[in-house]
Amino acid sequence: MIGSGTRIPVAVLGATGSVGQRFVALLADHPWFEIAALTASDRSAGQPYGEVVSWVQSTPLPAGAVDLVVQPTEPAAATSCPMVFSALDAKVAGPAEQAFAAAGCMVVSNARSHRMDSDVPLVVPEINGDHLSLVAVDRRARAGGGAIVTNPNCSTIGLALALKPLVDAFGVEKLHVVTMQAVSGAGLPGLASLRILDNVIPHIAGEEEKIEAETRKILGTVVDGRIAEHAVAISAQCNRVPVVDGHVLCVSVALERRASIADVRGSLESFSGEPQRLQLPSAPRHPIVYLDDPDAPQPRLHREIEGGMAVVIGRLRSCPLLDFKFVALSHNTLRGAARGALLVAEQVVARGLLTGFDAVRPPAAKSPS
Amino acid sequence: MIGSGTRIPVAVLGATGSVGQRFVALLADHPWFEIAALTASDRSAGQPYGEVVSWVQSTPLPAGAVDLVVQPTEPAAATSCPMVFSALDAKVAGPAEQAFAAAGCMVVSNARSHRMDSDVPLVVPEINGDHLSLVAVDRRARAGGGAIVTNPNCSTIGLALALKPLVDAFGVEKLHVVTMQAVSGAGLPGLASLRILDNVIPHIAGEEEKIEAETRKILGTVVDGRIAEHAVAISAQCNRVPVVDGHVLCVSVALERRASIADVRGSLESFSGEPQRLQLPSAPRHPIVYLDDPDAPQPRLHREIEGGMAVVIGRLRSCPLLDFKFVALSHNTLRGAARGALLVAEQVVARGLLTGFDAVRPPAAKSPS
Amino acid sequence: MIGSGTRIPVAVLGATGSVGQRFVALLADHPWFEIAALTASDRSAGQPYGEVVSWVQSTPLPAGAVDLVVQPTEPAAATSCPMVFSALDAKVAGPAEQAFAAAGCMVVSNARSHRMDSDVPLVVPEINGDHLSLVAVDRRARAGGGAIVTNPNCSTIGLALALKPLVDAFGVEKLHVVTMQAVSGAGLPGLASLRILDNVIPHIAGEEEKIEAETRKILGTVVDGRIAEHAVAISAQCNRVPVVDGHVLCVSVALERRASIADVRGSLESFSGEPQRLQLPSAPRHPIVYLDDPDAPQPRLHREIEGGMAVVIGRLRSCPLLDFKFVALSHNTLRGAARGALLVAEQVVARGLLTGFDAVRPPAAKSPS
Amino acid sequence: MIGSGTRIPVAVLGATGSVGQRFVALLADHPWFEIAALTASDRSAGQPYGEVVSWVQSTPLPAGAVDLVVQPTEPAAATSCPMVFSALDAKVAGPAEQAFAAAGCMVVSNARSHRMDSDVPLVVPEINGDHLSLVAVDRRARAGGGAIVTNPNCSTIGLALALKPLVDAFGVEKLHVVTMQAVSGAGLPGLASLRILDNVIPHIAGEEEKIEAETRKILGTVVDGRIAEHAVAISAQCNRVPVVDGHVLCVSVALERRASIADVRGSLESFSGEPQRLQLPSAPRHPIVYLDDPDAPQPRLHREIEGGMAVVIGRLRSCPLLDFKFVALSHNTLRGAARGALLVAEQVVARGLLTGFDAVRPPAAKSPS
Repeated sequence: MIGSGTRIPVAVLGATGSVGQRFVALLADHPWFEIAALTASDRSAGQPYGEVVSWVQSTPLPAGAVDLVVQPTEPAAATSCPMVFSALDAKVAGPAEQAFAAAGCMVVSNARSHRMDSDVPLVVPEINGDHLSLVAVDRRARAGGGAIVTNPNCSTIGLALALKPLVDAFGVEKLHVVTMQAVSGAGLPGLASLRILDNVIPHIAGEEEKIEAETRKILGTVVDGRIAEHAVAISAQCNRVPVVDGHVLCVSVALERRASIADVRGSLESFSGEPQRLQLPSAPRHPIVYLDDPDAPQPRLHREIEGGMAVVIGRLRSCPLLDFKFVALSHNTLRGAARGALLVAEQVVARGLLTGFDAVRPPAAKSPS
Repeated sequence: MIGSGTRIPVAVLGATGSVGQRFVALLADHPWFEIAALTASDRSAGQPYGEVVSWVQSTPLPAGAVDLVVQPTEPAAATSCPMVFSALDAKVAGPAEQAFAAAGCMVVSNARSHRMDSDVPLVVPEINGDHLSLVAVDRRARAGGGAIVTNPNCSTIGLALALKPLVDAFGVEKLHVVTMQAVSGAGLPGLASLRILDNVIPHIAGEEEKIEAETRKILGTVVDGRIAEHAVAISAQCNRVPVVDGHVLCVSVALERRASIADVRGSLESFSGEPQRLQLPSAPRHPIVYLDDPDAPQPRLHREIEGGMAVVIGRLRSCPLLDFKFVALSHNTLRGAARGALLVAEQVVARGLLTGFDAVRPPAAKSPS
Repeated sequence: MIGSGTRIPVAVLGATGSVGQRFVALLADHPWFEIAALTASDRSAGQPYGEVVSWVQSTPLPAGAVDLVVQPTEPAAATSCPMVFSALDAKVAGPAEQAFAAAGCMVVSNARSHRMDSDVPLVVPEINGDHLSLVAVDRRARAGGGAIVTNPNCSTIGLALALKPLVDAFGVEKLHVVTMQAVSGAGLPGLASLRILDNVIPHIAGEEEKIEAETRKILGTVVDGRIAEHAVAISAQCNRVPVVDGHVLCVSVALERRASIADVRGSLESFSGEPQRLQLPSAPRHPIVYLDDPDAPQPRLHREIEGGMAVVIGRLRSCPLLDFKFVALSHNTLRGAARGALLVAEQVVARGLLTGFDAVRPPAAKSPS
Repeated sequence: MIGSGTRIPVAVLGATGSVGQRFVALLADHPWFEIAALTASDRSAGQPYGEVVSWVQSTPLPAGAVDLVVQPTEPAAATSCPMVFSALDAKVAGPAEQAFAAAGCMVVSNARSHRMDSDVPLVVPEINGDHLSLVAVDRRARAGGGAIVTNPNCSTIGLALALKPLVDAFGVEKLHVVTMQAVSGAGLPGLASLRILDNVIPHIAGEEEKIEAETRKILGTVVDGRIAEHAVAISAQCNRVPVVDGHVLCVSVALERRASIADVRGSLESFSGEPQRLQLPSAPRHPIVYLDDPDAPQPRLHREIEGGMAVVIGRLRSCPLLDFKFVALSHNTLRGAARGALLVAEQVVARGLLTGFDAVRPPAAKSPS
């Protein structure tokens, strides 16, 4: 049973990139999962991870990963792993993830390749854990019994989390969002320093489309084994700014039902979801944190709140065009990538969707700490 | 006569700050104006400018200014100057500018203190040179025969310039703007480096209100010696980013009349105004420059276009919520401050509003160069 | 007894500045000390700390400090505090610290004012804890029985720590150091962002002299109740770079006795001192960490190693002019300021120098964890 | 004849990289040279330059270059060009430059591949134009009559220029240099932004060796058709910092003969060379500029002095270890790359070394302007 000491062996696909490194760092201490295999491109395969990775995390390379021999990104790498985490580049993720799923793996992916596939859930655990019911559909369609579950784009997650309580309480009709995104969102090598120092780049290829499409899918509902997308009208404008970690979003929303600022703020601050109820290992206590400081939220000061798993919101006020506007911050390589995907994986396990592992029960009620 | 060799003696008020320094640098080679006096706080008064200024411009301190003895910011400093440029901090600009106007000076101010005064024109020369007719009104009300003319806030100018052709051609009903502003906009010492490195600050005190109010005034019309403000509904959200110079604006607009993208782009690219017709010394050839590069405009690459006097626009496309959206860039300490104020001063002179100096006629038509 | 549950009440002088904030953050969880009073300038006195501080730390303002009423920086603020931490600006620290010492307080200061006083120890606990014997001398000379103990300049600490094992093992004759220092070293507001973005400033007023003088004092020996300075010849060149935290030093040394690279590296890696033996709460397990990565150490990746209390060294190699060169990194606001001063305070207590508190014994040997 | 209106047709090899772009920008207005061909990798060949280049210069792409069809980097591209500029990556420059030289071209190269070849001059025109006599040696050895002439590494040029007057006047025995280098020195894509934001990287592969070797060659003398290297002992430590353009060097020197600070400064300020005497088009009036500001030189403020062709020096003072120390700044992509290579090419032409073009005579003496 999960938590009893034995851990689930997992593989990290694409372990040398910046998101892959985050997975390795976070899995080192994970109570449920244990790294059994690391894969990378053929160029790195066959060598110890510690020698081929160009480590850029501010925590040290975990001792247990240093000597693991990197394997090619093929299903044979994961024969002992019921679950794999994909940090593959979108250029190769599509067929590679299919191959692992066909071999029976539960693939939890941070890549964009399958996010909009109709039978693949795109999950933010506090919002739409129920979309994981697609896994059964997905599984039936595959020979090997595996499935693919995806994590949204790093800028979508924060937006969707901030919207969810408003959707539930008041309905959201229209949405205008301008992002200021950190360079770590572009991975490694990612953006050349010569392009971004003393600069803003007002365009991230494909990002605006991803925000618009993914947000509607995440906020959608499962109808007859398919996702019926939410109808919110979205206008997104994405910018890259010289910040290491943390995406800032300037959001304006038009609600379906009348609400006061106090109503909106109350809905944000009281928001909680299944990961909190189940006390999943990577779940923040508060998935949304509201700050009163008029200059908040700021990436450098607030991105690490709740281990980088909260959306930090501030400056809620009336919007002269729509109804309300506010600023939201989310950590793009924690909630927006590796740790967010871990939480999805935990939810998959907790819901009993990993063959051979029982569902997790919510802890008995206890006095709040 | 202007242009014949003798130049108009001018004073720069607040000459040691960052905008004051820009005035000093730009006036060094100006064909119409000549620095006759520099003022600063009492602490600096009495000493040579070269010794008290902490020069932060990338062009050298002009030789002619090095030995000028700095004077206190009092009208006595400008007895020989029919025109003064105010780069005073808003904390002291209000009464000081009034005092110079009362002493008979034409005060061209970059400070915010009098921008929204009902009898003070707030001018972007390509847009509303006709607002300078308020000068006569202003003058009548003063004992000394002086007047105050103002330059808008650095983030408003680019926005107003980008909107003007749309207002003229199609009408603008609604406007959503998110800014990413350079640190030089906060002057010196301005923003602490510890606050902005690896960071975004999603709030600039008073800035959103200034954009909303000033834009409506600039786009307004003179009715019975007063400005009737334009009715456009504006929602602004202002951010500070780690960029040296150049404010980027993500703009969405709803137009009153139907237009195609080609219509909108045509109106932007063909835009021209009085400064271009009169070929004023600080006028850009093209006040609006449209770039096709999907990653444009960017502060570091494009802020110097047209000597920092153009608004550089890119990414014009449909907006799912309003009608169109685009990105605009303007140089906040050139068009948005010192050089923009110089252009206003040139327009004041060219329109014959500086007592003792004739109006300037447009140059005879010639074949385009 | 320390560690039994009751904690020593302490005051933080200058609690609203950036170093003062670090003290407040670090003391919130300290096992030996407890914040009893916070002082600031008269402007802030009388108001709750949470309202007057402009918090710039990435950890939240500790709940216990929010409502503490800020007091003026006068000895009356510390009547219940046998120990005070001074984060005062050097402009006011001199007389203020004297006043607290005269009132009987043990003043542990991060300010430069008294560092070079002949009767004041300047301490890096791993290097020269024995200099604390000056406290007795200092105390005798004061009416009130207090004393002042100081923490070195943020760039000196890392240098002195890196040198100490070489001094002990081989003798150090000459030293050439070029620093690249983070902006947080200049405090708040400190360096204007307009001065440092896309820039290097090759001068920090007084810093080179401080490094040269403080290093010689710290490496000196106590002779007849006075410090006899070390004779090493030092050439320092200090630069400010656009980095948030972490000073990088390029060091070349000439040794007195012949040594191989392996000898030098061995002496660095095996270095340990009294704080490690006594297992003081703020002591790093390894005060010097050597990294093999040819691109290490780097501020962003390595400044947090050992809680910011280690000097991280890399690139040890022969120097064509002197004997060896290497790169050292230390965290300027942790080891180089607040946490470093805490370690000094812990050493003061552990050595039984705080009246009323017994000395701490080293823990019994146990199996390594 | 040069200057009479007809210009020498030239090719730029590797025209799409960042140095190649600089060549294209600078050649657009050059009085002696005219772009006749642009080459790039096979991937770009056959397409218009304007379509394949990802332009990152702050001046616009020259109109004349937009429609030039890019050619493969093979000698056939330069059949009409007696001179070619190589901005090739070092990975391909070696054999490619040989091929163009074998085809009869005078190759002026910014790549490192042939810099240390015994028959290839490595030239800073103010220092060692006489090394160009190797061209005749080189030519004799080649079938095609071409030759290769090289420009030093971007960090070496500034150092060598700063040293030359000291070598001539006092002799230089030892040299310690620590560099803080801009990211543009790494080209495009060059350094990943995720590696350098909020960071310093204390290592640039191969750079320290280049500085040490190239400086000795440049300061060497021609003996019997070969370069006898200068014997100065050099210790270099190279760092990358988050600056766009401009390398800063902290230099300490030991001189062979006694000199005062005034002597050293006088030798720096009065330095001038053949490019100044011949008034070559790209020559700065003053190749060394000394600034008295205690905070100078700084990359952002001073890199553009003299069109980026001067070494800007400040902070000259005694060194406690060697004799003197100072800070030097040079623009790494202007003097340190494209414009520096242009000046070399001008010197080649002016000395009559380009077959078919007469030597240039120094202008008649005239009163100084």
